[in-house]
Amino acid sequence: MNPKIIAFDADDTLWHNEPYFDEAQERFCVLFQDYASKQEILGLILNHQIANLPLYGFGIKAFTLSMIETALNLTNHSISGSGIEKIITIGKDLLQKPVELIPNVEKVLSELQGKYKLVVATKGDLKDQHRKLHDSGIGAYFHHIEVMSDKNELDYQKMLGRLDCSPQDFLMIGNSLKSDVLPILNIGGYGVHIPYHTTWEYEKIDFEIKHDNFYSFESITEVLSIVK
Amino acid sequence: MNPKIIAFDADDTLWHNEPYFDEAQERFCVLFQDYASKQEILGLILNHQIANLPLYGFGIKAFTLSMIETALNLTNHSISGSGIEKIITIGKDLLQKPVELIPNVEKVLSELQGKYKLVVATKGDLKDQHRKLHDSGIGAYFHHIEVMSDKNELDYQKMLGRLDCSPQDFLMIGNSLKSDVLPILNIGGYGVHIPYHTTWEYEKIDFEIKHDNFYSFESITEVLSIVK
Repeated sequence: MNPKIIAFDADDTLWHNEPYFDEAQERFCVLFQDYASKQEILGLILNHQIANLPLYGFGIKAFTLSMIETALNLTNHSISGSGIEKIITIGKDLLQKPVELIPNVEKVLSELQGKYKLVVATKGDLKDQHRKLHDSGIGAYFHHIEVMSDKNELDYQKMLGRLDCSPQDFLMIGNSLKSDVLPILNIGGYGVHIPYHTTWEYEKIDFEIKHDNFYSFESITEVLSIVK
Repeated sequence: MNPKIIAFDADDTLWHNEPYFDEAQERFCVLFQDYASKQEILGLILNHQIANLPLYGFGIKAFTLSMIETALNLTNHSISGSGIEKIITIGKDLLQKPVELIPNVEKVLSELQGKYKLVVATKGDLKDQHRKLHDSGIGAYFHHIEVMSDKNELDYQKMLGRLDCSPQDFLMIGNSLKSDVLPILNIGGYGVHIPYHTTWEYEKIDFEIKHDNFYSFESITEVLSIVK
């Protein structure tokens, strides 16, 4: 295949991310371990995150605000000011984590550079994703970064319109079947799934994908086998 | 002049925004009126907002988190859980305000439509700005919306690179001299300032601008006098 644009998801595709969120949630669970089990607390955070998606969207600020709501809920509003401050600190720490590339990412980008227009297509906080791309040291490989408010079919269609690119000339690579692959296949593009060892509950789907434009790889280096 | 792209700032240029923030801050001041004067409280919120800009960027989620920090600060961490919840509600209410167009905006857009590529270029929360453009009813006039993590010279240069547009073919229209006009003039573009009756403290500058590419208008309709 010979796409015009190859787009890469960022978190857990280019660099590690979910383990930082897991660690943040672990810290939160320790703070409130007298109120509920870890499983219950994680479920509550997720419920608040999903309930807040229409207003807050994705990213660490939304996550922080959802943790605060979860804490109010868990403690029946008896949480102290210093408890709230600790939650804010968990969020701010997340916004300052080092950016560690996933193995072989830079090698693949350097092979593709100059042959294709490379784009980052990610959800999350605008400022935070720009910061991470900068800190990653791989910003120069990309034409630009698209921070999307969501990754459904309409969002991708709008993006392709802006980029003046037909779906059949577009290849999207990412770790989420739900956000990086399915909507792209549905609008006529090509999707590559490279699983990450841990996936946010919200991004999980419980069916298999079979599609001519779908590729499932173990490592990002395998992308080089389908584009020249 | 005959620009290729005309970009409009959104908040307080296309639709009313700052009065909603003023109202939100007013509600916050009433909640904490036993702790400090209104002027002191507003100063504290601003300090927290500015201190948080490098991590949080702009927008309502950042504003909400800064209000929570201000409340911790004001009450010496003695704020109750229900106080925190009231602040979260102030933020969520802001995210659901109706979008009211500024007079003559639609008339000007309909005159310019088809003759120029029209773009929205704004800071703020990604999800929120997309929502407001949708709710505004004027989305169809624009090629797309650029939600920027900041509006300094480098941010505009990156945007123009993405849009494949030279600065001399770019006209930016907005209510903030600091964010919508100065950086554009500095990189060789054209800037139109249309003041709004109230301006966020952070956006104020205390000097006059004199520049061949600078226009200062009372109303957005005057834009039609410089582009055909």
